[in-house]
Amino acid sequence: MIIVMQHGVETDLIEEVKSRLVQEGFDIHESRGIARTIIGAIGDPTRVPLLALEAMPGVEKVVPILKPYKLVSREFKEEPTVVNVGNAAIGGDEIHVIAGPCAVESRQQILETAQVVKESGATLLRGGAYKPRTSPYSFQGLGLRGLEYLAEAREMTGLAVVTEVMDTESLPQVREYADILQVGARNMQNFNLLKKIGEQDRPVLLKRGHSSTIEEWLLAAEYIMSMGNYKVILCERGIRTFEEYTRNTLDLSAVPAVKSLSHLPVIVDPSHGTGRRELVAPMSRAAVAAGADGLLVEVHPYPDAALSDGPQSLKPQSLSDLIHELDSMAPIMNRSLGTLVG
Amino acid sequence: MIIVMQHGVETDLIEEVKSRLVQEGFDIHESRGIARTIIGAIGDPTRVPLLALEAMPGVEKVVPILKPYKLVSREFKEEPTVVNVGNAAIGGDEIHVIAGPCAVESRQQILETAQVVKESGATLLRGGAYKPRTSPYSFQGLGLRGLEYLAEAREMTGLAVVTEVMDTESLPQVREYADILQVGARNMQNFNLLKKIGEQDRPVLLKRGHSSTIEEWLLAAEYIMSMGNYKVILCERGIRTFEEYTRNTLDLSAVPAVKSLSHLPVIVDPSHGTGRRELVAPMSRAAVAAGADGLLVEVHPYPDAALSDGPQSLKPQSLSDLIHELDSMAPIMNRSLGTLVG
Amino acid sequence: MIIVMQHGVETDLIEEVKSRLVQEGFDIHESRGIARTIIGAIGDPTRVPLLALEAMPGVEKVVPILKPYKLVSREFKEEPTVVNVGNAAIGGDEIHVIAGPCAVESRQQILETAQVVKESGATLLRGGAYKPRTSPYSFQGLGLRGLEYLAEAREMTGLAVVTEVMDTESLPQVREYADILQVGARNMQNFNLLKKIGEQDRPVLLKRGHSSTIEEWLLAAEYIMSMGNYKVILCERGIRTFEEYTRNTLDLSAVPAVKSLSHLPVIVDPSHGTGRRELVAPMSRAAVAAGADGLLVEVHPYPDAALSDGPQSLKPQSLSDLIHELDSMAPIMNRSLGTLVG
Amino acid sequence: MIIVMQHGVETDLIEEVKSRLVQEGFDIHESRGIARTIIGAIGDPTRVPLLALEAMPGVEKVVPILKPYKLVSREFKEEPTVVNVGNAAIGGDEIHVIAGPCAVESRQQILETAQVVKESGATLLRGGAYKPRTSPYSFQGLGLRGLEYLAEAREMTGLAVVTEVMDTESLPQVREYADILQVGARNMQNFNLLKKIGEQDRPVLLKRGHSSTIEEWLLAAEYIMSMGNYKVILCERGIRTFEEYTRNTLDLSAVPAVKSLSHLPVIVDPSHGTGRRELVAPMSRAAVAAGADGLLVEVHPYPDAALSDGPQSLKPQSLSDLIHELDSMAPIMNRSLGTLVG
Repeated sequence: MIIVMQHGVETDLIEEVKSRLVQEGFDIHESRGIARTIIGAIGDPTRVPLLALEAMPGVEKVVPILKPYKLVSREFKEEPTVVNVGNAAIGGDEIHVIAGPCAVESRQQILETAQVVKESGATLLRGGAYKPRTSPYSFQGLGLRGLEYLAEAREMTGLAVVTEVMDTESLPQVREYADILQVGARNMQNFNLLKKIGEQDRPVLLKRGHSSTIEEWLLAAEYIMSMGNYKVILCERGIRTFEEYTRNTLDLSAVPAVKSLSHLPVIVDPSHGTGRRELVAPMSRAAVAAGADGLLVEVHPYPDAALSDGPQSLKPQSLSDLIHELDSMAPIMNRSLGTLVG
Repeated sequence: MIIVMQHGVETDLIEEVKSRLVQEGFDIHESRGIARTIIGAIGDPTRVPLLALEAMPGVEKVVPILKPYKLVSREFKEEPTVVNVGNAAIGGDEIHVIAGPCAVESRQQILETAQVVKESGATLLRGGAYKPRTSPYSFQGLGLRGLEYLAEAREMTGLAVVTEVMDTESLPQVREYADILQVGARNMQNFNLLKKIGEQDRPVLLKRGHSSTIEEWLLAAEYIMSMGNYKVILCERGIRTFEEYTRNTLDLSAVPAVKSLSHLPVIVDPSHGTGRRELVAPMSRAAVAAGADGLLVEVHPYPDAALSDGPQSLKPQSLSDLIHELDSMAPIMNRSLGTLVG
Repeated sequence: MIIVMQHGVETDLIEEVKSRLVQEGFDIHESRGIARTIIGAIGDPTRVPLLALEAMPGVEKVVPILKPYKLVSREFKEEPTVVNVGNAAIGGDEIHVIAGPCAVESRQQILETAQVVKESGATLLRGGAYKPRTSPYSFQGLGLRGLEYLAEAREMTGLAVVTEVMDTESLPQVREYADILQVGARNMQNFNLLKKIGEQDRPVLLKRGHSSTIEEWLLAAEYIMSMGNYKVILCERGIRTFEEYTRNTLDLSAVPAVKSLSHLPVIVDPSHGTGRRELVAPMSRAAVAAGADGLLVEVHPYPDAALSDGPQSLKPQSLSDLIHELDSMAPIMNRSLGTLVG
Repeated sequence: MIIVMQHGVETDLIEEVKSRLVQEGFDIHESRGIARTIIGAIGDPTRVPLLALEAMPGVEKVVPILKPYKLVSREFKEEPTVVNVGNAAIGGDEIHVIAGPCAVESRQQILETAQVVKESGATLLRGGAYKPRTSPYSFQGLGLRGLEYLAEAREMTGLAVVTEVMDTESLPQVREYADILQVGARNMQNFNLLKKIGEQDRPVLLKRGHSSTIEEWLLAAEYIMSMGNYKVILCERGIRTFEEYTRNTLDLSAVPAVKSLSHLPVIVDPSHGTGRRELVAPMSRAAVAAGADGLLVEVHPYPDAALSDGPQSLKPQSLSDLIHELDSMAPIMNRSLGTLVG
């Protein structure tokens, strides 16, 4: 990192900064200019936060050079990480579509949807049993019963199940039923939850917080990996901006950006990312063209009766049309669409 | 609410919407224009989410008229809520300053700071035992030991203690030591935590999420109140914007806005709100001038050695200077500065 | 539109609102509920601003139903607008790539780049003679000389020229040399400039303001069209958000959104949209997959010597590689890549 | 500035960067670490943009240390700038309130309002003759006639007049009538307009762009000052964020921030900053408490009949109440409220 000292600062303050750096095992390089004295420090970037240099007297600013994360970075691991779930290999040559309703609403609804998802060509099933809702008066999910229905749907179709875990208390229970543990946008910085999930031997789908920078997102993944769980799949789902036409602003540039910064797979959720059914197909195509490893799409047999996110849920026919389109696009990206026959 | 139907929609779709509304006990008023048919519906706003009208075929948009929250609203309760903590009455005529370090770092540090806080004229002590940190490699707090030191500081000074609770697991433990349970910005939409806190008989300090709208913030308070805990204090701490000079953009207009929408007390955190020591005093004065019921300020005996948030922590002398200024300002707001002698 | 009256408002205030609406030729529909009285009003949406109803006593809020723009809307014109420039038809079946340097720096630089652009397969040449720069100390462009060099490049290559016009004073001059008049993001709401350009018989490339909503963007186009110039091409170039990794956040969902709201062609500028060379190709593919009618890409023979935007400029080889990729992608969108042979 | 070279970059690339710096007259200091080579460069910061180092091969990033502006900075001029307009000295010990309607609507309206403004104790009159409006169908202002009415109001009351200039063409005309030339938020980066205004011998009120950083705002002021006009008054008027309750988010922390970075006076516009009449008084008090040198407030004799911004315009009585409040607050800031008797 680089430490820029204030103009005309006393020498002893400079020495204090240097000695704290040396104590912490950093190699330092000082250069005194007319306007400023600059200290370059080389060492373990993950120990920088402990230095708390910004608060030292005489320090104008501290400029990190190396990234604050380690395990998630490309420097740490060159080759892309492939996360295997059932027959699906996420992050490899295949592009996988995870589809399902926002929330599990009834046994019949999820079984019917699972059938739709399988026939459409999608390879994993999504559905929420525990739902984070802005209003305490909204449908909060079926809980355990929802998990059981999801398991039944998996039995019936062979589709692996992705479902959200909202807190450390329900983690053991959700873990029992889920093939992939989803961490929602609102929980991206629920650090205790991240740590606990980091102790599980289960793939994780980590959604980007709706106002989190790419760096904060990667640091959230670092929390999980630092506890030993390396099976992390990142999911871009739109960020909050001033634009009101779309529910969020889908930041597709985050896909190639994360691909260059990290070895982890990245998928995209165009349903939450746009909040509008008619934008899901174009943004799904765009996500694949930007290099996404997969998609997380909401589908509902009767969107107009959905208890949540109806306006952004595809109808069954639209889902299979979309997957058909993606199938013809994949080769251009030198990829193919995922299939269940492993 | 108002339901706007799409242009040239079939009559039976209009009827379906109307019948769903009637089923749910809403009074409806239809008006057919040349361009659009509009349905006005009067009923319990808290049941609107269950209708999921946006997804019904033929519906162009749904426009809420009444607020989606109830218990937090001025309509529900005219007179301002006053939350009593020890000798402090927050939300009344007195303005209270809650001060302390970002994190409890050692027994000596918190005892020394508590002394400083008391002498400065502040009436409550803040300090984090459990710290949410963006990087897994940052200081994470002393945990239980930190809580014990806080209790000791309370013994010594008589100052009530405000400290953050990060999850439902540690809630019983934190509850044992804290006079006010703080919910951090990152946990504002940790709904299970909000519900559990709603079951406690303890005042709560609910920080606004750094990208939460005022409405989402009030709905988070509604989660707590809907479980029975009415002792909620709201805290504006800055929102995330494009501006990089300040750590966050302190949204002081939220203070009078919340005051008109809700009966709950509102305080301001100028330390996180700006991230810069030199801006804390002016923004503290501004907060009081905007009608805030109190302040949450970071102070540290040796900011340059602080393990977190040093750059935004006041030095002891600055804190007492600030409180002195506020003391002379309060009368203009027809208020007085809080004191410990209840 | 819908006018929601305040709770318990006097009848005469309701009557005043109604009479102002009737005076302005609106059909009105009143519905009185227990909680609120609602007035539905049908009429020319473009006259709504003149009513200034929000400020009338007793009015709680005014909810527009119809869009505030007319000429740009799909309702006004079903079939897509195709803007013809030289041999290029923008908005038709062909996807066109407009490429060139950020700024014209010298005769040799623009002639050399024009050659590169032509050989790569792009069909229009971009280059700034007048440059809006954040700092008064940055290179401000060659002005008239730059325009002359662009004309020479056109002579040499047959490529039509797109260049920015910054103010009404230089408009006649720029008009003389440009085939397409570019309005930059910073000038999207320079209304006098928009009106003057609306009087020209020249195609316009209207960039989205970096913090403008889609609606404001379409209203800016409405300014131009309301003066008689219907040859407007919209250009998404990224919006300002909290994310710092990319220069802007490219809002690709704006492409299908605008396509559904308006009949005007939409192209994308991935260079300014990302600010990073390595993200230009993936976001260009994504733009085409999202339905864009074309791209505006920065290329420079020696990016490392560019006087502006070097970091986001492609090298010649990368441009032809990109165009090759797009060529194989276009058929999936049932389109083809534009060529010069009309 | 500091130039961080990429990991393992060839020596000759480092040399190229160094030689370009030396050519431009910078003193350089190189330090080679294991991970990175860092070059510190000391020289005229205003010439940095010309170097375009970011684009040089081998350069990872360039970190500015000194500010990119000069004339506006505190380093350049220690003592605060005081701008004299008629009897008002803005930026001195007195706090001045500039009040008036958003737009001049008629002779009677502006004369009546001017009387109100004078009686309330405000010391300058605001009013728009040329109005930038989002929709081409909104009231666009009275133009020249509006300027004549403003002059008449000045005659009658002795109040100096602040009015907006929208383009270089109308500048000579507006200059003839205005005591202070206002540059609106949308024109903050209309660089040609800034340059032309920089050539005038007239005070300027430069509004912050609704999505401009403090640095961009100060660079806009630098444009004006670099042409010779040093009489610049900055005006914070709210920035665009995700929050929808207020029209903009008033960034009061920008007031003390700008005060520390620059010697120019700063005033605040709580009317546009909030868009809500009931928030104008609290945010006006807060602005003064934050250190603002004045206020720009909208007042209208009949807000409910206003052709623009009615909802945020104060009624005459509210204005004088507000000024009365500010009068009692000023002494706490060691200031007094401005009066006309110079």
